[in-house]
Amino acid sequence: MAFEITKELLENITSYIQQKKDVPLSELLGEIHHADIAEILDEIPFDEAIYIIKLLDSETTSEVLMDVDDDVREKILKELSAKEIAEEIDELDTDDAADIIAELPEERKQEVMSEIEDEEHAKDIVDLLRYDEDSAGGLMAKELVKVNENWTVLKCVKEMRIQAEDVSRVHSIYVVDDNGKLKGRLSLKDLLVTSTRTQISEVYIPKVDAVNVNDEAEEVANIMRKYDLEAIPVVNELNVLVGRITIDDIVDVIKEEAEKDYQLAAGITQDVEADDSILQLTKARLPWLFLGLLGGIGAALIMGDFDEILEGFPVLFFLTPLIAAMAGNVGVQSSAIIVQGLANDDIKGSIKNRLIKEMLLAALNGLLLAIFLFIFVFVWKQDFKTALAVSVSLVIVIVVAGIIGTFVPLFLDKRGIDPAIATGPFITTSNDIFGILIYFMIAKIILGI
Amino acid sequence: MAFEITKELLENITSYIQQKKDVPLSELLGEIHHADIAEILDEIPFDEAIYIIKLLDSETTSEVLMDVDDDVREKILKELSAKEIAEEIDELDTDDAADIIAELPEERKQEVMSEIEDEEHAKDIVDLLRYDEDSAGGLMAKELVKVNENWTVLKCVKEMRIQAEDVSRVHSIYVVDDNGKLKGRLSLKDLLVTSTRTQISEVYIPKVDAVNVNDEAEEVANIMRKYDLEAIPVVNELNVLVGRITIDDIVDVIKEEAEKDYQLAAGITQDVEADDSILQLTKARLPWLFLGLLGGIGAALIMGDFDEILEGFPVLFFLTPLIAAMAGNVGVQSSAIIVQGLANDDIKGSIKNRLIKEMLLAALNGLLLAIFLFIFVFVWKQDFKTALAVSVSLVIVIVVAGIIGTFVPLFLDKRGIDPAIATGPFITTSNDIFGILIYFMIAKIILGI
Repeated sequence: MAFEITKELLENITSYIQQKKDVPLSELLGEIHHADIAEILDEIPFDEAIYIIKLLDSETTSEVLMDVDDDVREKILKELSAKEIAEEIDELDTDDAADIIAELPEERKQEVMSEIEDEEHAKDIVDLLRYDEDSAGGLMAKELVKVNENWTVLKCVKEMRIQAEDVSRVHSIYVVDDNGKLKGRLSLKDLLVTSTRTQISEVYIPKVDAVNVNDEAEEVANIMRKYDLEAIPVVNELNVLVGRITIDDIVDVIKEEAEKDYQLAAGITQDVEADDSILQLTKARLPWLFLGLLGGIGAALIMGDFDEILEGFPVLFFLTPLIAAMAGNVGVQSSAIIVQGLANDDIKGSIKNRLIKEMLLAALNGLLLAIFLFIFVFVWKQDFKTALAVSVSLVIVIVVAGIIGTFVPLFLDKRGIDPAIATGPFITTSNDIFGILIYFMIAKIILGI
Repeated sequence: MAFEITKELLENITSYIQQKKDVPLSELLGEIHHADIAEILDEIPFDEAIYIIKLLDSETTSEVLMDVDDDVREKILKELSAKEIAEEIDELDTDDAADIIAELPEERKQEVMSEIEDEEHAKDIVDLLRYDEDSAGGLMAKELVKVNENWTVLKCVKEMRIQAEDVSRVHSIYVVDDNGKLKGRLSLKDLLVTSTRTQISEVYIPKVDAVNVNDEAEEVANIMRKYDLEAIPVVNELNVLVGRITIDDIVDVIKEEAEKDYQLAAGITQDVEADDSILQLTKARLPWLFLGLLGGIGAALIMGDFDEILEGFPVLFFLTPLIAAMAGNVGVQSSAIIVQGLANDDIKGSIKNRLIKEMLLAALNGLLLAIFLFIFVFVWKQDFKTALAVSVSLVIVIVVAGIIGTFVPLFLDKRGIDPAIATGPFITTSNDIFGILIYFMIAKIILGI
């Protein structure tokens, strides 16, 4: 059932737009899901995208706006009047509405907000704008179904029907007391299988998972994933129910978090896609490459200092890319495991124990690799001492690389810095330099130079 | 609200077990969510874990079993009799039940299946075992609420109540025809806000997203994420409704997929965690390191071939780690962007255009880096020609690295191989060798040796 944007479809759309055939174009778009319309807008020229946006009704436009690429949305919003944006905002749930408003320049924000007709909606949005976008408050929507524990079932059902009109997906009915404090929940399923004559206070489930408005998005994601929740209520410091977070937003958090970590590990500093411009891609890639260049220059300077070895033992220099590669690879491996463990809240026990374990692991791996390297160098150069020098150095380089790879992300995490930046070029570069320095120092000692 | 496993809690549990105080232990565990009990079992000694498993009722045990680490589950299942496992299976939804059965050794499978009391349940599980675990069929559960389009509302509600008892979360009520073919859906919300006197065929929504049993798990995840779905029905080749997939399973798919790609990029071949044994970690890490070692040996042999340059231009050798690092970093960056684009189904257009774009991008980045390298080498060695040789080589190495990094994952993907293996050590190693070879060849030409 996967929707595919075919060439024919795009040609059809373009020709409708050029001939201003609005009726068949509307009919065609009416058959297409808003998420797919968004993909089409990402593909076609911008003036055609604007034409479509202006043609669609504001309910569809608002959904499409949430789904297009960030840069396309920014451009579209620039083309719309404050009144037009306000109309889209009116159609959106408060969480999406607040996200759009937050993206606008400061003076536009005011303009748009003043055009929003539904005052309650506007108030909710302003409320949501207060929260950090990476917190539970930044993710939550104000739309939810809540009932008072003291209500009769009759009043409850009546109220629920009114509230449910505003809520696109009803997961749970939250039960609050007279002060708005969260007391428990009613499940829809319970409503389906329970007699309608039962009383609220008798049927609600007093146990309910909730998060605080200030909890981090990643923490909320971990909780919802762990407990298989599809929605979670959000409470403030007084345990007053202030919103709810649904799983679809959390799916996006998980996906984005994973992509960010992956890109950082690959040496890409900001969220880019293959289709971004060369300039954007350069901005994301060049800083890490430059760091790598500095590392290489550092390594070259170190090697320049050891140039007295060059005459008798040039093979040591032939092996420097190998040493650098091993130091880098081991560093990336050990840091990746730590970064992933930290993200999953899986790292228990002391840093000391972790370092000892990584040391043993690196020593084991290093020993096995060193045996192989020893045989190669001995066969190649027929020189026992050189073979011994490079193999022993390799083991020590690998152990140090493993320790750095383990320690750095743990250290950054303790300092409140995202440990994911420690993987990739950062660890590779520092390990290249340390690795080559250690390698020549040890080799010099063993060779007695 | 995040649950924390405290030292006190673990000590309490241990002392209850040692003194065989089953009643307070049951009470203590009764307060804890099954996902948290699973975490506790992952932490404590195995004999204590088994004690707890035997103490819990089979409903809780079955949920706990689904949440513990794979290796702990395997050990626990070995300790349980076929009858005990069958009791857990009876409590689980068909998708989870099939997952557990699939993990058992062949002869145990038969034993356990024959002990399952609910024949309908057993039949459903056998049916699910047919599907590949990475397909929609492997993810789906048989539990769902479906109604016939020809039913009256009265019959429908009655039937739904019976079916809903079996289904832990009701998302949608699927509407089928007399042949079981999927026709549409009824939303719970519609039921909440619609008068009960309405007729099914009049109220159902004929438009419903569905996936085929044979669709890949990753594709299902992309669809559910794109369309913000919380459940999706699964149909077979005849469009007969055979199951449904819920978002909680998809969240796990997304998370696992991302972790796998991340680990592959970091040079870790199989799913490991920081807490796994040194042997397991070595098995996951050593193969990639060995590949890196072979790459380093290849680079050393190439450098050995160029040793006539050594006398006049040792600085070329000092810069080999820099060249290798740049080739590796650029390769990882470009492959990572392609791999991520492929995973998100975001890569459109021809391979040729992508390669041209990457070439331009790499040339731009390479040029900027080369200018810096030129200045450094010129200042360091006061030799224009050497500085020119290494800078020009660097640009060409970076362009080639970018092309390899772009081409390899696209090529693997076209061949049906997971492109994620192309990032990390694989691309680093091949780029190290190519990079150093190209570097010396170009430098030789420019220096006129």
